[in-house]
Amino acid sequence: MADYEGTPKVLLEKAGAGIGDVIAVSLPDGRSFQGTLMPHHAASANHILTIKLSSGYNVGVHVDGSATVRRVTAAPPRSATARTFPAAAGKPRVVILGTGGTIASYVDYRTGAVHPATTPEELAFAAPEIFEVADVKTRVVFQMFSEDLQPEHWQAMAREVKKEFDAGARGVVIPHGTDTLSYTSAALAFFLRDLPGPVVLVGSQRSSDRPSSDAAINLKAAVDVAATSDLGEVVAVMHAATDDGACAIHRGTRVRKMHTSRRDAFQSINALPLGFVEKGQVRMTQPYRKAGKGPVVLDEKIDEEVSMIQSYPGLWPDHLEKVVLRGVVIVGTGLGHIARRNLDMVRTISTGKHPDGSPRLRYDGKVAGPSYVVMGSQCLHGRTNMNVYSTGRDLLDAGCIEAHDMLPETAYIKLMWVLGHTQDPAEVHRLMRTNLVGEMDERSPVDEYATGHRLPAPQ
Amino acid sequence: MADYEGTPKVLLEKAGAGIGDVIAVSLPDGRSFQGTLMPHHAASANHILTIKLSSGYNVGVHVDGSATVRRVTAAPPRSATARTFPAAAGKPRVVILGTGGTIASYVDYRTGAVHPATTPEELAFAAPEIFEVADVKTRVVFQMFSEDLQPEHWQAMAREVKKEFDAGARGVVIPHGTDTLSYTSAALAFFLRDLPGPVVLVGSQRSSDRPSSDAAINLKAAVDVAATSDLGEVVAVMHAATDDGACAIHRGTRVRKMHTSRRDAFQSINALPLGFVEKGQVRMTQPYRKAGKGPVVLDEKIDEEVSMIQSYPGLWPDHLEKVVLRGVVIVGTGLGHIARRNLDMVRTISTGKHPDGSPRLRYDGKVAGPSYVVMGSQCLHGRTNMNVYSTGRDLLDAGCIEAHDMLPETAYIKLMWVLGHTQDPAEVHRLMRTNLVGEMDERSPVDEYATGHRLPAPQ
Repeated sequence: MADYEGTPKVLLEKAGAGIGDVIAVSLPDGRSFQGTLMPHHAASANHILTIKLSSGYNVGVHVDGSATVRRVTAAPPRSATARTFPAAAGKPRVVILGTGGTIASYVDYRTGAVHPATTPEELAFAAPEIFEVADVKTRVVFQMFSEDLQPEHWQAMAREVKKEFDAGARGVVIPHGTDTLSYTSAALAFFLRDLPGPVVLVGSQRSSDRPSSDAAINLKAAVDVAATSDLGEVVAVMHAATDDGACAIHRGTRVRKMHTSRRDAFQSINALPLGFVEKGQVRMTQPYRKAGKGPVVLDEKIDEEVSMIQSYPGLWPDHLEKVVLRGVVIVGTGLGHIARRNLDMVRTISTGKHPDGSPRLRYDGKVAGPSYVVMGSQCLHGRTNMNVYSTGRDLLDAGCIEAHDMLPETAYIKLMWVLGHTQDPAEVHRLMRTNLVGEMDERSPVDEYATGHRLPAPQ
Repeated sequence: MADYEGTPKVLLEKAGAGIGDVIAVSLPDGRSFQGTLMPHHAASANHILTIKLSSGYNVGVHVDGSATVRRVTAAPPRSATARTFPAAAGKPRVVILGTGGTIASYVDYRTGAVHPATTPEELAFAAPEIFEVADVKTRVVFQMFSEDLQPEHWQAMAREVKKEFDAGARGVVIPHGTDTLSYTSAALAFFLRDLPGPVVLVGSQRSSDRPSSDAAINLKAAVDVAATSDLGEVVAVMHAATDDGACAIHRGTRVRKMHTSRRDAFQSINALPLGFVEKGQVRMTQPYRKAGKGPVVLDEKIDEEVSMIQSYPGLWPDHLEKVVLRGVVIVGTGLGHIARRNLDMVRTISTGKHPDGSPRLRYDGKVAGPSYVVMGSQCLHGRTNMNVYSTGRDLLDAGCIEAHDMLPETAYIKLMWVLGHTQDPAEVHRLMRTNLVGEMDERSPVDEYATGHRLPAPQ
């Protein structure tokens, strides 16, 4: 945190305004912004004033000499600012485990550089409301972009979550980059059982069309869930829509990032959100697993020799052969199909033998042995049904396991987890077909699917 | 086509009802169906009566001895049935090129076996309305499940389309399996230029929740577009919603199958549908390319040494190395990212050299040479933006080409097409960044994105 410099400093001095004051900024193009002046962050460009709007959004306002700043009301006296650090005593303990995502960070909108807020003070400036509802402790586990996280990081996070629950946390919040947030939430769902409280992944999307950040609203909603709900699951809490402050609570194994930039990018697929958070109130709207008494069972053993590959016209059978180690999720077409020219290869993969009896080799030249093939669908919505067409039936005969209504990414993580626990084929098949942590269901709700089509009004 | 046998025959005889009569079937569970009795098809089980409802849907009604059938009105006299083959003279010529999908077929709902309707007579029974608007000719090009179609089949289809336009067709309709319909529509969009009329891909989804088929309604809408619209593009025409007869007209390069089983599975992604068909009326609602004077330019040369691979936590760098030939589309996370541990491999792929200077080898042991890497997003919605984070900038430095708002599958097909036309790196980069046939845009409409979230009513 540092003082403003350059143009913002000049404008603020002229207005006699300081951090914590409510100010109004007017731009020559007719726009104006009113809200609480937030501290300058070293990462921000020197032409940006950061203002917290009454909606909770932090806005970075680009200013030059043609902007005007007016002080509307003064900051509350120093003693009153203790309000941002209300007494923790008696409040539920919520631990925020930082992993380095955009959330709870200061973003330089010019460069995209992201600076995690790691101390309670920094968080307080981003989202002081969280201290109203919880005894918040923060700890940094990693500082990484989420696209760099690997399965070993999921395991490390699971261990940290267990530590915090064992030490008395009521809930754990994990700010996380959005790129792979849903991979992590699915992995933690398999790794952590008998949770005595919510584990809440939360991220923030940089909106391409405006400079405001959804970090504060999402973080507050995540802390609300961690501090007040009786969930005993791993969930992701993210904006439910673009234009208001409601956040959706998604089951960790059912959520997917479906838009590169919108705030409401995260959707529950083949499931409805478990609930919503609005104005600090958590409302559960679907059945969920309730928190148990603990202790958390940590079960993070996985087999990393699993891969995932999409099926498409033009996919070369040899590619399939080369990328499959002990298991593979094929992201098939439609109800779970692959071209018939690749069918022999699927049989070869699942038996470990070519049609001529010769052993299948991995890309490194080693004998591969039989591998597990799980078939999902690139449609994402809906469920595989490999009994409808002969292609599907032949794939089942060749040893394929259906993903049913699991997301391909969730099936991939589940297969890693299952193969980390058993190498018995019958048990692998049984576990992959069994709903373990809400990742699959016999029926999917039909009303979770929505299209962007707008039917024109009748003429 | 054959007469009904077994229980249906007994029930029909008892009611004195025959093909073409309007009948009412009542089932013991309280359901009843009224509509025109359609002919029995050999592929159907012997306990199914096929009825065309007034909505246009053909319903297969399972009947046993407890069902009752009542004749409501008699079929029009034989002479009047000539109405199903109205005079073709003066009507626009629409050619239906069969490829073997579920559309325009008789489906045995018990086994899923699909029997293409290949003659005008068979089509007439499925959708007699098409003969009202067009001089319909049918021709079978393949009889294949769409998951088996390969790039060579796209090329063959393009050649057949050109033949038909050269011979005077006003529009061409291609019934197609839904699994890879959108791959074909994208490929044809790149292969065919200066179209003098619409090329309409159409499919039908078997609905998991009811026995009715959407084939007739979709086919009629496709023929409406082919016969009456002034489109000069390749489009896909499919149900726009579950519960009514409106069909959406999707641009071929923008459409994707987003649900395994629903009728409204097809969505335009990062684009709005070009228009809609309702009750025989085509209404264009977005800008589109108008039909030219022809002749069609056929330009189907491609390079098949292109692959597609999703990036995910746990992706092994060596997998990337093995599956890449002359070009690859990486389906990255978020705005177009891949784990940093794979960054060196991306550079190796795009330069053809490992960091130590040794040449990169393909999975077959041959020296690979430099390859093209296009980066898309697994979010599907939204656009890549590789200038926001350092990961993206480093990928651009390593030679990546952004897919922008192209679907990964469209980017894959476009890369095959571009590499079929030039091996000049600057030209490859330029073409991949240039909108050729509506496959990419500088701005995506924000209102095409919809989520399945239902915000609960405020308490």
